[in-house]
Amino acid sequence: MHAYRSHTCAALNKDHAGEAVRLSGWVHRVRDHGGVLFIDLRDHYGMTQIICDGDSPAFAALEKVRAEWVVRIDGTVKLRDASLVNAKIPTGEIEVYAREIEVLGPAEELPLPVFGDQDYPEETRLTYRFLDLRREGLHRKMMLRSNVVRSIRNRMWDSGFTEFQTPIITASSPEGARDFLVPSRLHPGKFYALPQAPQQFKQLIMVAGFDRYFQIAPCFRDEDPRADRSPTDFYQLDVEMSFVTQEDVFAAVQPVIQGLFEEFAPEKTVHADWPLIPYKEALLKYGSDKPDLRNPIEMQVVSEHFAGSGFAIFAKLLEQEGTEVRAIPAPGGGSRKFCDRMNAFAQSQGLPGMGYIFWRHNPLPEEARNNPQDPRFVERFREVTAHLKTGLHGVSLEDINGYTRDSIEYNDAVTCLELEAAGPLAKNIGPERTEDIRKQLGLGVGDAAFFLGGKPETFEAVAGRARNEIGRELGLVEEGCFRFAWIVDFPMFEKTDEGKIDFSHNPFSMPQGGLAALQGDPLKVLAYQYDLACNGYELISGGIRNHTPEIMFKAFEIAGYPASEVEKRFGGMVKAFKYGAPPHGGCAAGIDRMVMLLADESNIREVIMFPMNQRAEDLMMGAPSEPMNEQLRELRLRVIPKD
Amino acid sequence: MHAYRSHTCAALNKDHAGEAVRLSGWVHRVRDHGGVLFIDLRDHYGMTQIICDGDSPAFAALEKVRAEWVVRIDGTVKLRDASLVNAKIPTGEIEVYAREIEVLGPAEELPLPVFGDQDYPEETRLTYRFLDLRREGLHRKMMLRSNVVRSIRNRMWDSGFTEFQTPIITASSPEGARDFLVPSRLHPGKFYALPQAPQQFKQLIMVAGFDRYFQIAPCFRDEDPRADRSPTDFYQLDVEMSFVTQEDVFAAVQPVIQGLFEEFAPEKTVHADWPLIPYKEALLKYGSDKPDLRNPIEMQVVSEHFAGSGFAIFAKLLEQEGTEVRAIPAPGGGSRKFCDRMNAFAQSQGLPGMGYIFWRHNPLPEEARNNPQDPRFVERFREVTAHLKTGLHGVSLEDINGYTRDSIEYNDAVTCLELEAAGPLAKNIGPERTEDIRKQLGLGVGDAAFFLGGKPETFEAVAGRARNEIGRELGLVEEGCFRFAWIVDFPMFEKTDEGKIDFSHNPFSMPQGGLAALQGDPLKVLAYQYDLACNGYELISGGIRNHTPEIMFKAFEIAGYPASEVEKRFGGMVKAFKYGAPPHGGCAAGIDRMVMLLADESNIREVIMFPMNQRAEDLMMGAPSEPMNEQLRELRLRVIPKD
Repeated sequence: MHAYRSHTCAALNKDHAGEAVRLSGWVHRVRDHGGVLFIDLRDHYGMTQIICDGDSPAFAALEKVRAEWVVRIDGTVKLRDASLVNAKIPTGEIEVYAREIEVLGPAEELPLPVFGDQDYPEETRLTYRFLDLRREGLHRKMMLRSNVVRSIRNRMWDSGFTEFQTPIITASSPEGARDFLVPSRLHPGKFYALPQAPQQFKQLIMVAGFDRYFQIAPCFRDEDPRADRSPTDFYQLDVEMSFVTQEDVFAAVQPVIQGLFEEFAPEKTVHADWPLIPYKEALLKYGSDKPDLRNPIEMQVVSEHFAGSGFAIFAKLLEQEGTEVRAIPAPGGGSRKFCDRMNAFAQSQGLPGMGYIFWRHNPLPEEARNNPQDPRFVERFREVTAHLKTGLHGVSLEDINGYTRDSIEYNDAVTCLELEAAGPLAKNIGPERTEDIRKQLGLGVGDAAFFLGGKPETFEAVAGRARNEIGRELGLVEEGCFRFAWIVDFPMFEKTDEGKIDFSHNPFSMPQGGLAALQGDPLKVLAYQYDLACNGYELISGGIRNHTPEIMFKAFEIAGYPASEVEKRFGGMVKAFKYGAPPHGGCAAGIDRMVMLLADESNIREVIMFPMNQRAEDLMMGAPSEPMNEQLRELRLRVIPKD
Repeated sequence: MHAYRSHTCAALNKDHAGEAVRLSGWVHRVRDHGGVLFIDLRDHYGMTQIICDGDSPAFAALEKVRAEWVVRIDGTVKLRDASLVNAKIPTGEIEVYAREIEVLGPAEELPLPVFGDQDYPEETRLTYRFLDLRREGLHRKMMLRSNVVRSIRNRMWDSGFTEFQTPIITASSPEGARDFLVPSRLHPGKFYALPQAPQQFKQLIMVAGFDRYFQIAPCFRDEDPRADRSPTDFYQLDVEMSFVTQEDVFAAVQPVIQGLFEEFAPEKTVHADWPLIPYKEALLKYGSDKPDLRNPIEMQVVSEHFAGSGFAIFAKLLEQEGTEVRAIPAPGGGSRKFCDRMNAFAQSQGLPGMGYIFWRHNPLPEEARNNPQDPRFVERFREVTAHLKTGLHGVSLEDINGYTRDSIEYNDAVTCLELEAAGPLAKNIGPERTEDIRKQLGLGVGDAAFFLGGKPETFEAVAGRARNEIGRELGLVEEGCFRFAWIVDFPMFEKTDEGKIDFSHNPFSMPQGGLAALQGDPLKVLAYQYDLACNGYELISGGIRNHTPEIMFKAFEIAGYPASEVEKRFGGMVKAFKYGAPPHGGCAAGIDRMVMLLADESNIREVIMFPMNQRAEDLMMGAPSEPMNEQLRELRLRVIPKD
C-alpha cells in the first residue's frame, strides 16, 4: 500500500464498503461522543469521517490528536446508518473505522482556527496565511483564480494568440506610476527597474513580426497604500495585435471575456450587448468613464430650463462659459425624505448640495375628479395650465369634457392635473420650466430629479457617485448580472491643474486624425484609446498605438517632452519604430479585478495567494527587511539615516 | 474591406485566383526584373509573392519600397506559371498583382538584414533584437518556446496539478546564489528580494492544504557571467506535491516530460526507459551526476589489477586510503594515435595524463596460423599463456590440435593468440593483469582502456569529460535521441574545501532515515534528493522535503547554522511547519534548458525573447541605467563613489 494514502479524502463512497483503506489529511474537527471518536479528516479534495472506539488499537493515539494535525489513518470503510448519511458531500454515505494512525505533522495551538467561519483580524490572517488558506472560502477562491487564469490562457490560444514572457528585470520606463528599482551589482550605481507593464515589450514584439501576442503578465508599481489595490504588484492579461483597428481588438477580446464570465458565473446573466460609449457621453450620462450600466439612470443636460430662470444660482452660473446644469432622474425617488437624504449625500461628497424636484400626487376630491365641470376641477385646470404654452399638453378643458369618464384620455388628463411638482427648485423656476424638465426626463408621480450645475469637471464625479447612490437606494440596479461597455474616444490630452497640456491617458496611443489632428487644438484631439467598463469597474484599458515616430514626437512635444527626452525614456521602442513598424494595438485586462468580480469579493487580498498588507509588508515572510552590510557593499549603496 | 488585410500572407492559394485581396506585411525582398517588380511580402504567418509592372498605378510607389518596410498592398490573385510554382510554401501557386500600395511603416537603412542567413555580432543582434527576431530561425525558436510552455501547462493540468502564482517581490532567502534586492520606498532602509526560486512558497502552498501545485515560475539570481546561463533570471517548471514519496514525483513528472519531448522532437527517439542511478554510481560509471547516457561507455573500478603491480605510480597511490583506479573502456579506440590524443586531452584538463592499454592484432604468418604444430604457433602459445593461470582461457595446445581448422573453437583460439596488449602500462603490469583487465572490461582487438587513479573526487570530473570525448571521437554516442535517467540518493552533506560540513544540495530535503540518521556520520547520510539527467544536462532537480521542524533544525545544526539563524532565514516556512505540515516533495525543471535541448541550441539567448547580454545588460532597452536623484532620495539611498 502507498506510504500515505490509497484514496483521497473525497474518493470513498458506498462502493468501497468493507475495503481496507489508507487516508492522509488534516484533522478538521474532533468530536468525542463518550467512548466513540469522530474525526473529520480533510485534504485538498474533500472530507471523510473517521470513526474509532475503544475496540480499536488506534483509540489511545487518536484521542490525542487535535485540530489541524496531519495524520495518516488506516482503517475499513463502513456504511453509515441511514439516519447519519450526509447527502451534501460525496463521502457522506460512509465512514472509515480507524485501526491504525500515524501522526505525520502535529500542530501547536492555533493562532487562527481553520474550522468555522469566525472572522479574524487581517494582520493575523496574513501572518498565518498558510492556516487562513486552509479555510474553505479562501481555498475556493484560490482555485477559482487559478481556473480563471487557465481558462483565459486557453481562450487566448484558441483565438490564435501566442503567449510570450517579457523581461521582469529591465529598464526604467516611467508610465505614470513609480518604478521599483533593482540595484545592479555588476554595474554599481546603475539600476534596473521592474516593469510597470510590458507595454514597450509587447509593442516591440509586434515590431518584431509576431502577430497576436498575449501574456498573463506580472506588473510592478510602487504605489501608495490604497484599499482595493496591491501596493506592489498585480497581474494583467496583456494583449497586442498587429494590423488591426479598434474594432478588431474588441472583436478579439469580447468573446474571451464574455465566455470567461459565463463559465465562472453561471448563476449570473452576462449581457452580450456591449455598447460603445464615447468617453464624453459616459461622463455626461453616468458621471464616470467606468459606468455601472446595471443602474438604468442616465443623466441629461437640462441647462436650457435653468438659463434665465428664477433659480438665480443656476441662472447666474450658466452665464459663465463652459458651464452646464445636469439632471439625475430618480424614478421612484419622489419623496422629500429621500431627496433630502441624497442632498445630504452630495454635501458629504464636498458639494454645496443638489437641488431637486419631486413629483407627487395632489388628488382632487372624488366628486370633482369625476366632473370636469366641477369648479374645483376647473380651478385646478387653470392653475396647472396657466404657465404651459400648450395647455395641458395640447388638451383643452373642452376636450376633457368631451371624453368618456372611463376613457384612457380622461384618466391621463386627470393624472396630469393631480401631478404636483414639489421642492424649492420647482417654485423658483415655475411650473412651465418644471413641466418641461419632467417631460424631458420622462418622469411622473413618485419620481424625482436632482440637479447639479457648474463646469462639468467640477461636479461630474460626484454626480456619478450620486447616480450610484440613487440607483442603489431605489433598488433600480439590476441584480445578478454583468453589464459591459466599451468606453471609446478618450481625449488625447488634458489640461493639468497647473494649466499645462499633458497626456490624459496612454502617451503611446494613436491620435485620431494622425499628424494633421495634432496641428489644431490639442484638447480637442481624441485618441484611439478605450476602456472596458463592467459593473462600475474598469476591467480593460487599451488603445491603437502610435507606431509612427513623427506623430509620436509631435504628440510628446505637445505634452512638453522634447525629442531628446522621448529618445531617452522610450529609446528602445522609438528606435524600433524607425525600422518598419506595423500598425498595432491591444489592451490589458486586470486579472485580480476579474477574479474579484467573479468571486463577488471587494478585498483584493482575498484573491491573491500570498498578498502584501496595505503597508506593502509581507507579514508571513517578513519582507521588507534590513539587508546584510555585505549585500549593500557589493551594490555600493549606503542607506541615508533618517534626518 | 478591412483597413489592413483581407488575408494573411500565408492564406492565399489557387482557389483565390481572380479575387481582389488586401495584404499587409514586411517587404522581405525586392527583385527588379527590368520593368517587372517581385516583392516577397512577409508576415507572422508566411510569405506571398507580389508582382507589379508598369501597367499598374502602384508601380512608381512600389519601385521605392525597400527591405523591411511595412506596406499594405491591394491587388488581384493570379496563378503563377507552372514553371514558377514554389511547392515549398502554401502560397507557392499564386502571386498577387499589385494595384495599390500604402506605406504603413518605412524603414531606415538596416543595421542587420532580415533576409538571409548571414551571421552578425551578438551585440548588434541584441541591440536590434526586434530585427533579429524577424529572422526565420529566431522567430521559429520563439514560437517553439511558447508552444513548449503551453504544452507543459496543459500536461500539468491534465495530470491534476493546479497553477498558482507566487510573489515576485518578497523576502530575501539565501539559497546559495545572490539575491536581487529591491529597496522599499515605504520602508526606507529596508529591502525586498526577488525570489531565487519559489521554494518556500511552494512548500507553504502544501502546508496550506493544496495538493498538487505547479507554476511556470520566473526565478531571479544575481549570477556572475556564464555563457550558458542568463545572468539575471530564468524560468522553471516548479512542481510540488503532498503526501508523496520520491516514486510518486517520478511517476507524475515522467509522462509530462516524455510526452513533451515526443511532441516537440518527433524526429528523435525519446527513450522511455528512465533508469534510477544512485549518485555515487553515476559518478563512478559516468564521472558526472548528469551523465550523457547516449554514450554507452561505463567506467569501472580496476584497483585490484594495479594494487601491488609493476606500475609503481598506481601501486603506490593505492596504498593511500580512499584511492581508486578506474578504467574508461574505449571500444574501437585501439590505436596509439587515438590513445595519445586522449592522454593529451586529460593533460589539457589539468591531469598529469591518463595511462592506457590498447589491444591490437599481432598476426601469425599464414602457414603458422593454419598449423598448431608450426613452431611459430607453439612459441606464440607459450608466450601468451606463460603468465595466464588458466592457460589460454582453459584451452591447451593439445585441445587446439584437436579442433577442426574451420571450427569456431579453432578461430577463437587463434584470435586470442593474435591479440596483443600495447602501451606502457601493459608492459609495467604484465600480461596476466593486463588480460584480467581486458576480460573485466570486455574488450578485444581494436579497443583501448584509459586509467585514472587517486582519490575519486580529484579525477572524477575529468574522467567524465574524457568519457564524453572518447565517446564522441569514436562515434559511440547514439544520435537523434534523448536518454533520461533519475540520479538519486544524493549525499545530504559534504565537506567543504575548508573542511567544514555543509549541505551538498538542497537544505530542505529530507535525510533518508530521518532524525536517527542524523545522529551518525553526516557524510554518510543520503537525502531524498534527485536530479533528472538528459543527454548530459541536468533538466530537473528536486527532493522530498524535510517537513519536520525537529529534523530540520538538526540538519541545519550539523551544517553549522544555529536554530536562531534558521528561524531568521526561513522563518515563514519553519513557523508553518509547526502547525500541521504534510509530507511533501517536488521538483523544478529548467524551461530554458528544455527548450534549448528541443531546439538543438547551445546558446541560451537563442531561446529567450529579450535576453540580457553576458554582462547582464539589456542593450535594446538600455538597462541598467543611472537612476534619477529623486528616485534615490525617495529610497533614502546613496551610491558610494568608486574609491
